[in-house]
Amino acid sequence: MKKSVTFQDIANYTGFSKTTISRYFNNPDSLTLENQQIISDALVALDYKENKVARILASGKTEYIGIIVPNLFLHYYSEMLNQLLSTYEEFGYKFLVFVGKDKKDIERQYISELLAYQIEGMIILSHTISSEELAAYHIPIVTIEREDKYVCSVNTDNYMGGMQAASLLSKTNCEILIHINSDVTPEVPSYGRIKGFKDICEEKQLPYEIILTDLGSTYEESSEKIKDVFQSIEEKHPDKRKGIFLSNDTHANIFLNMIIRKYGKLPETYQIVGFDNSSISAEAVIPITTIGQQIDVIAQNAMELLVMQMNERKKRKPTPLKEPIHKVVTPVLIRRDTTD
Amino acid sequence: MKKSVTFQDIANYTGFSKTTISRYFNNPDSLTLENQQIISDALVALDYKENKVARILASGKTEYIGIIVPNLFLHYYSEMLNQLLSTYEEFGYKFLVFVGKDKKDIERQYISELLAYQIEGMIILSHTISSEELAAYHIPIVTIEREDKYVCSVNTDNYMGGMQAASLLSKTNCEILIHINSDVTPEVPSYGRIKGFKDICEEKQLPYEIILTDLGSTYEESSEKIKDVFQSIEEKHPDKRKGIFLSNDTHANIFLNMIIRKYGKLPETYQIVGFDNSSISAEAVIPITTIGQQIDVIAQNAMELLVMQMNERKKRKPTPLKEPIHKVVTPVLIRRDTTD
Repeated sequence: MKKSVTFQDIANYTGFSKTTISRYFNNPDSLTLENQQIISDALVALDYKENKVARILASGKTEYIGIIVPNLFLHYYSEMLNQLLSTYEEFGYKFLVFVGKDKKDIERQYISELLAYQIEGMIILSHTISSEELAAYHIPIVTIEREDKYVCSVNTDNYMGGMQAASLLSKTNCEILIHINSDVTPEVPSYGRIKGFKDICEEKQLPYEIILTDLGSTYEESSEKIKDVFQSIEEKHPDKRKGIFLSNDTHANIFLNMIIRKYGKLPETYQIVGFDNSSISAEAVIPITTIGQQIDVIAQNAMELLVMQMNERKKRKPTPLKEPIHKVVTPVLIRRDTTD
Repeated sequence: MKKSVTFQDIANYTGFSKTTISRYFNNPDSLTLENQQIISDALVALDYKENKVARILASGKTEYIGIIVPNLFLHYYSEMLNQLLSTYEEFGYKFLVFVGKDKKDIERQYISELLAYQIEGMIILSHTISSEELAAYHIPIVTIEREDKYVCSVNTDNYMGGMQAASLLSKTNCEILIHINSDVTPEVPSYGRIKGFKDICEEKQLPYEIILTDLGSTYEESSEKIKDVFQSIEEKHPDKRKGIFLSNDTHANIFLNMIIRKYGKLPETYQIVGFDNSSISAEAVIPITTIGQQIDVIAQNAMELLVMQMNERKKRKPTPLKEPIHKVVTPVLIRRDTTD
């Protein structure tokens, strides 16, 4: 393998100093266009292959961003990851991806490794580490759909989403509205789904139930839990027309499949609404009506918010944010075939 | 922020030379256990935070591996990614992930960036760049389920998988066996599924059809194509008992859903087998019988094969592989509810 071209080689070739060559890479605007052209031509002539690691040491810019997702089982995370990774073409940042699986210590170890590698920022979707602890890392961070008090975030307007679901179901002549979710705390954005659903039911004086229970973190666990919920609903309200709003599309698909297995079709007594608009909602046996998160918009917003913070840090005198910025993205009702 | 601790600081504190400190980090075995302990204690006392970028320059070890997947739409890729990322706990390597989306030029640009950052190896699942071109990068590479003539690979024994599918269907009294797949070339491992299916059908003198057509690379495209295939099968063989073997579980799920939407159940006239054992096969309205790829075993094998190559390169006198190594992992028949 041939020896790589050094700044000294480029300096010798062009007659400029090594400092000038360094400035070409780290602060090209400080050179005249003419001199930039001379150096640029020299790089081609010398077949210069950039060694980015050396540049990182010089500039502190690694162009790396860490992403931590809790799992890839929920189709929502898989799709969000897809959208974040797809920003490479626009922003040029490369992503180090980690699946947390609720192992707090491993996640901490991973983050400390990323910091040792001088990544420029992090996008966090996992719920394990508090935003207070994240903020203490003192690097640009954006969280998505998790507790975010001390760091910047992009979230769906979950409250509006819960309202949209209840409003839609209220128009389908349901005799009872039921929301099934995990028992999330008010600090977590998705709590808004519960509250929005409840507020509309009370405002419109609709009979409703809210079933909050740990729905597990694997398909098998979720299936077991939702099976119990399905059976209790079947027993309690056998003949009523039921409007069911589930916490996400993965769970809505499980619920729908139980109905289809029992009845061979979606009977008049069920209306179903999911949340996320993740792939499974379209791929289900009956395409599922869902409150769509605009995952592409969220990913784009998250990157813009992160890049803004990262660019600020590269300034000679960075001005840190006084307060974390929380962006909210409106959900979109996607009507498919599980509601009239 | 406090100034970071340098090798010089550690040398001053311990009385060792900077060379000794450097050896502690890059070749600790060359020091006595006693001296390792002294330096280790000094790091704690000085609150040393490792700057890995500096270490990379010294050692050439970045601990980074690039992964390129074609898309995250097929559940198979999402699950493979999950399994590869999960090896972090065992191997300590961190993964730069890219979704290729069949854009060859962007993929090349991404790879050249990764090389500039001195990643240690790559795991390639995308099909766009030939193995000949990949081999010319001269870094450790393992491909999974794609053309692999000039590079190391781990693949499922697709031929056996095709045989397993045809054998199973042959035992269910089907009057015709049908395999639906994309028109892949013999260089691609998954071609073995077609050949294995065909060979068993001919050996057992079973009536069969093989439908090869571009099945698209998004859910919408695949749905359109499979709808046409479904309708043509319905018209051609309305009353026959049909054994259908599909190229993957995502496609099997689409096919199954079309049957359920039409009949409200899986009629006696259909037996369905998918491929992959990806999440959708279990999450389908009727859990799908599938030829399971042992995705965890493949991921583990791919990492072992890659680590072996990466470790070789770190030796003073590396011996390059004379020939690429191709590992084959046996598929496992997973019987669920779409076959008798």
